[in-house]
Amino acid sequence: MNNPPRLSFASDYMEGAHPDILRRLSETNLLPTPGYGADQFTAAARDKIREACAAPQAEVHLLVGGTQANAVVISSLLRPYQGVIAPDTGHISVHEAGAIEAGGHKVLTLPHRFGKITAGQIRELLDRYRGDETRDHMVMPGMVYLSQPTEYGTLYTAAELREISALCREAGIPLYIDGARLAYALACPENDLTLPELARLCDVFYIGGTKCGALFGEAVVFPRPGLIPHFFSIIKQRGALLAKGRLLGLQFDTLFTDGLYLRVGRPAIDAAHRIRRALKENGYRLFFDTPTNQIFCVLENRQLERLAQWVDFGFWEKQDQSHTVVRFATSWATRPEDAEALAALLARERDR
Amino acid sequence: MNNPPRLSFASDYMEGAHPDILRRLSETNLLPTPGYGADQFTAAARDKIREACAAPQAEVHLLVGGTQANAVVISSLLRPYQGVIAPDTGHISVHEAGAIEAGGHKVLTLPHRFGKITAGQIRELLDRYRGDETRDHMVMPGMVYLSQPTEYGTLYTAAELREISALCREAGIPLYIDGARLAYALACPENDLTLPELARLCDVFYIGGTKCGALFGEAVVFPRPGLIPHFFSIIKQRGALLAKGRLLGLQFDTLFTDGLYLRVGRPAIDAAHRIRRALKENGYRLFFDTPTNQIFCVLENRQLERLAQWVDFGFWEKQDQSHTVVRFATSWATRPEDAEALAALLARERDR
Amino acid sequence: MNNPPRLSFASDYMEGAHPDILRRLSETNLLPTPGYGADQFTAAARDKIREACAAPQAEVHLLVGGTQANAVVISSLLRPYQGVIAPDTGHISVHEAGAIEAGGHKVLTLPHRFGKITAGQIRELLDRYRGDETRDHMVMPGMVYLSQPTEYGTLYTAAELREISALCREAGIPLYIDGARLAYALACPENDLTLPELARLCDVFYIGGTKCGALFGEAVVFPRPGLIPHFFSIIKQRGALLAKGRLLGLQFDTLFTDGLYLRVGRPAIDAAHRIRRALKENGYRLFFDTPTNQIFCVLENRQLERLAQWVDFGFWEKQDQSHTVVRFATSWATRPEDAEALAALLARERDR
Amino acid sequence: MNNPPRLSFASDYMEGAHPDILRRLSETNLLPTPGYGADQFTAAARDKIREACAAPQAEVHLLVGGTQANAVVISSLLRPYQGVIAPDTGHISVHEAGAIEAGGHKVLTLPHRFGKITAGQIRELLDRYRGDETRDHMVMPGMVYLSQPTEYGTLYTAAELREISALCREAGIPLYIDGARLAYALACPENDLTLPELARLCDVFYIGGTKCGALFGEAVVFPRPGLIPHFFSIIKQRGALLAKGRLLGLQFDTLFTDGLYLRVGRPAIDAAHRIRRALKENGYRLFFDTPTNQIFCVLENRQLERLAQWVDFGFWEKQDQSHTVVRFATSWATRPEDAEALAALLARERDR
Repeated sequence: MNNPPRLSFASDYMEGAHPDILRRLSETNLLPTPGYGADQFTAAARDKIREACAAPQAEVHLLVGGTQANAVVISSLLRPYQGVIAPDTGHISVHEAGAIEAGGHKVLTLPHRFGKITAGQIRELLDRYRGDETRDHMVMPGMVYLSQPTEYGTLYTAAELREISALCREAGIPLYIDGARLAYALACPENDLTLPELARLCDVFYIGGTKCGALFGEAVVFPRPGLIPHFFSIIKQRGALLAKGRLLGLQFDTLFTDGLYLRVGRPAIDAAHRIRRALKENGYRLFFDTPTNQIFCVLENRQLERLAQWVDFGFWEKQDQSHTVVRFATSWATRPEDAEALAALLARERDR
Repeated sequence: MNNPPRLSFASDYMEGAHPDILRRLSETNLLPTPGYGADQFTAAARDKIREACAAPQAEVHLLVGGTQANAVVISSLLRPYQGVIAPDTGHISVHEAGAIEAGGHKVLTLPHRFGKITAGQIRELLDRYRGDETRDHMVMPGMVYLSQPTEYGTLYTAAELREISALCREAGIPLYIDGARLAYALACPENDLTLPELARLCDVFYIGGTKCGALFGEAVVFPRPGLIPHFFSIIKQRGALLAKGRLLGLQFDTLFTDGLYLRVGRPAIDAAHRIRRALKENGYRLFFDTPTNQIFCVLENRQLERLAQWVDFGFWEKQDQSHTVVRFATSWATRPEDAEALAALLARERDR
Repeated sequence: MNNPPRLSFASDYMEGAHPDILRRLSETNLLPTPGYGADQFTAAARDKIREACAAPQAEVHLLVGGTQANAVVISSLLRPYQGVIAPDTGHISVHEAGAIEAGGHKVLTLPHRFGKITAGQIRELLDRYRGDETRDHMVMPGMVYLSQPTEYGTLYTAAELREISALCREAGIPLYIDGARLAYALACPENDLTLPELARLCDVFYIGGTKCGALFGEAVVFPRPGLIPHFFSIIKQRGALLAKGRLLGLQFDTLFTDGLYLRVGRPAIDAAHRIRRALKENGYRLFFDTPTNQIFCVLENRQLERLAQWVDFGFWEKQDQSHTVVRFATSWATRPEDAEALAALLARERDR
Repeated sequence: MNNPPRLSFASDYMEGAHPDILRRLSETNLLPTPGYGADQFTAAARDKIREACAAPQAEVHLLVGGTQANAVVISSLLRPYQGVIAPDTGHISVHEAGAIEAGGHKVLTLPHRFGKITAGQIRELLDRYRGDETRDHMVMPGMVYLSQPTEYGTLYTAAELREISALCREAGIPLYIDGARLAYALACPENDLTLPELARLCDVFYIGGTKCGALFGEAVVFPRPGLIPHFFSIIKQRGALLAKGRLLGLQFDTLFTDGLYLRVGRPAIDAAHRIRRALKENGYRLFFDTPTNQIFCVLENRQLERLAQWVDFGFWEKQDQSHTVVRFATSWATRPEDAEALAALLARERDR
């Protein structure tokens, strides 16, 4: 039997947490701390995040999940008559079960290119709105939502984001970045958007924990404080306030100790690089190329079935009757030997 | 001076009401009646609407305006996790300032063709939703919204609506028709969708008053009663309950006495026919052809400016640098001499 | 048969409109005007209201109904984490089917005394909130809602409202007055709160039309403009924008021509005075005394049944097994002979 | 120095989790599992909860926090025109920052007695609503919310809950119980409301984890499945779906293995018993008596200040100028020596 053991490349939230986090949870378990984020771990996490972002005044709120963070931030930023500009592939556009609309707001979608939208597209939408005689009967574009990396694993460059940021400031609308997988951007050699640059360019962004080494948790950062007054009460009202805030505090304190967050995504990037190389060497067709931990590949359907016997991966979309786009996702927990095993499997299945 | 007097073809809600309505308002003015629709005029209006729709059990609610009717009906029909399927040109998609989203729901748009969508498109959307592994993270299609006539003045045929209705019943989702301009459909020779047919095919629709001869008012009809329990309280909660419900009752009682509603749109249709003929005869280019009271025409920009000196009409969209799509709308109040005057003006401006 | 004809004292929205309004509706019926409040009548109404309020900068929006006005204003003024302070008898607390909560906000009720609350009570509530360690987990008081006259037909004095206004400004929260029956306050000799004084003391108030001589309509006045940016779009989104805004414009233009609004309530006040006198002279027990058009009276149940044969009035509440509190409401349409007829009836029924 | 070390009786969510939970988190940390509750731990937790509740068909959803559970359940159960009946001291009434209203619904409060309300009070409210002629303009009572134990640490008896449950079924409205501290009820000798009895009497309830030995988590139980269709999508839409559902599954699996949940509150009850005895023996005045883990006691203010030097506890309310009501809360993590230390401190401070 030379079959590899079953491999897991289905997503990046399949495992628990970085071992340092679990260790510290155990060490501090019986220490009594105040609730709702008034504990010392949360204070330390906030300080370290501010430092990592070179944003000493930043307001930092630790929430549990990404859809929650998006819904709370967006509904708080928008006035009733406003909507949020987003790529049509944005997580808020498709995969949050209508959370933005449930909060009262339209998602104003723009067609993506590899998960991204451009300053030009945003400007055109703003101009179209302003130039419309019936605009007071329409939803006003009130903010911009992007994700880094995108839903398709691609990256905005610093130059691209600077252009979007400048446009948003000119238009007087906030720019918000969903960083659910931000660690995988930061670990990429191709990436030139650092945390301090993000903090300079955005009005609010979140640093993903759930998919980046934490059990759960997303750190919402307002580089300039006070953008949303009484945000704490809004978090509470939305059912998004964790009683034992220490759990969030301790996780982000750990992730931002000794730069762990900047390193935690590297195993994923290395593994993805190895897998992409194997795909290319073995004649597989990439759907499109990405630098981060998500790899999109077009498989012939029988090939897909054979691979699915040995490895978990994601079905992305049908391409035609006989081909399917699939996604391999690596994570902070992917080991080099897992990537090698997948590479071997891909080589083996090539010839059949 | 052989210039015509200034002509009004900007929209179909520019005048007051059919003279019969004003007369009856005056006659009944000092008669005390109970409020909130418990008056005798509302009772009579309901009976006459039921009869006109051949729907003796129908539940009829009289609301003040169209956006209001759409918002109240749609938010009441949908469960929190559902959205409403609509053409991308639907009034709810574009021109209600986000009222549907403010009520908590996504508008699931389909690309229109001349303002219409097909059963095939709806089926494909339903199939795509059901076939998606992640559908529980998505907005479930929960009802269908159409308008008759459409935003582009076109008409669904009875055959088209039967197919959509059958699909909705198969899928278990209600079909709702916005009849803001319904009188103009009913007055069209091309129309084969009668009120009884609408009542058979829809789960709820509204009969437009505001644009069809009333001062204001839209009659929401549930052919089979009880679809939305306690709809009266929902209307009240949404601020949509008129204290002096008699005003709505008396208007719809008048519109449905001696078949006035079936006749009230004819002057508009006749006038539109005359104008379309003048446009064609004088070499103007129709944007596309429509049988109802809205006429879409492509004007060269200098031509547009000259016409705009004598006549009010609507700017629809830019076509290119030198051409603009405009809309001429006739109404129940358009007189034959107004149509003739516009025809003469169009002939005069052709040559310049 | 010396029985009087059936008398109508059930409420103040039982008739149509002041004859001047109907006359002008007829005169202007076929004049084309732009929609949505861009017409000349609305412009004139706004100017005249500004003048009557001595508030030349005031922003005036004409809405259709009271619950609608309350819901739109309150939900627009409050931030998500705030609630509205109101008397427990306030219309928004009890009789709007939860419209404020449907808009996302708690009504923070204070116990009324004859429909009124005091600056002292409001201050205590604000202090209690501020002094509570867990206040960030509670609803923040964000504005004050009162009505003039109150639900019980009583009046705030200028001195009382000045104290409340000063407190609101000190606390930084807006003061909003529901003037559904404002004409009846303004027509009262006891009233010392003029329109200019209201405009000085409030951040927003509405001048009631529906119960005060109009077919429908409430004029929302922001004495200092810009309090709610893009209020027009919010009105549209809430389904509260009347297509033929001219109907509102023309009604308020008429009510504010030659001071009609200040006079329109007088017949009601005179009639109420006559009825109160008859009640007192004939030994009926007032529930409490009121200066406006609502009269609350305690009837023995058999007396109530006899009166109910000849006159329509409102059942307010059970007092005990054998007594009931009822309400007689007069209106702008009440004629002196109606009041006399009721007085005669009350005298006749006293002895039986 | 014979001073005790600083003692922690401020609340029951000050520590991490029961050691068995942390141990299992560590053991399973790198095991890949599917997300969103499709993992084997969640399946096992659901089975064990069904068994503990003797409700083999029960639908079980694991959420992160109590305010979240309340908001999601209540807004899903109520129709737009309905409100939730609750004691005026209920957590949803006071301490959830308006979450229920933000979801669109009024909390219909009843005056509590030691945190409890009675079937008689609920019946009276229902009767008052039904008997009101204007009820269609009011909020309809649509469900009942209680907590066990209550906010005041008191318990409903099985007899009391049976009466309320019978009334709810007669009235056709669901009964929901907030069991944030349910383990402390179940560990009480005075309690006669078992999990199977709760499952029989309620339409939905939640079993608290956050305050009862878990890091976080509340298990929402529908004893009869299908009460809220597509509840999963609603949870997602509300931002309440944990990506790594395994964390919730594993915690509840642990709490329901070998009856741990029935035992986990005992240390709290034993400690509370010891502290209550010490208070009584030393002449302290209980605010009122409670059988669970919350002890309310009236302290003279100087006494309070002295105690506050050595022990953390909660300030409940001012009683008068010189007395304050405080709360000592024990928890699953309170050790016998902590209770002894507090008892000794109370004895020492008595005489001063």
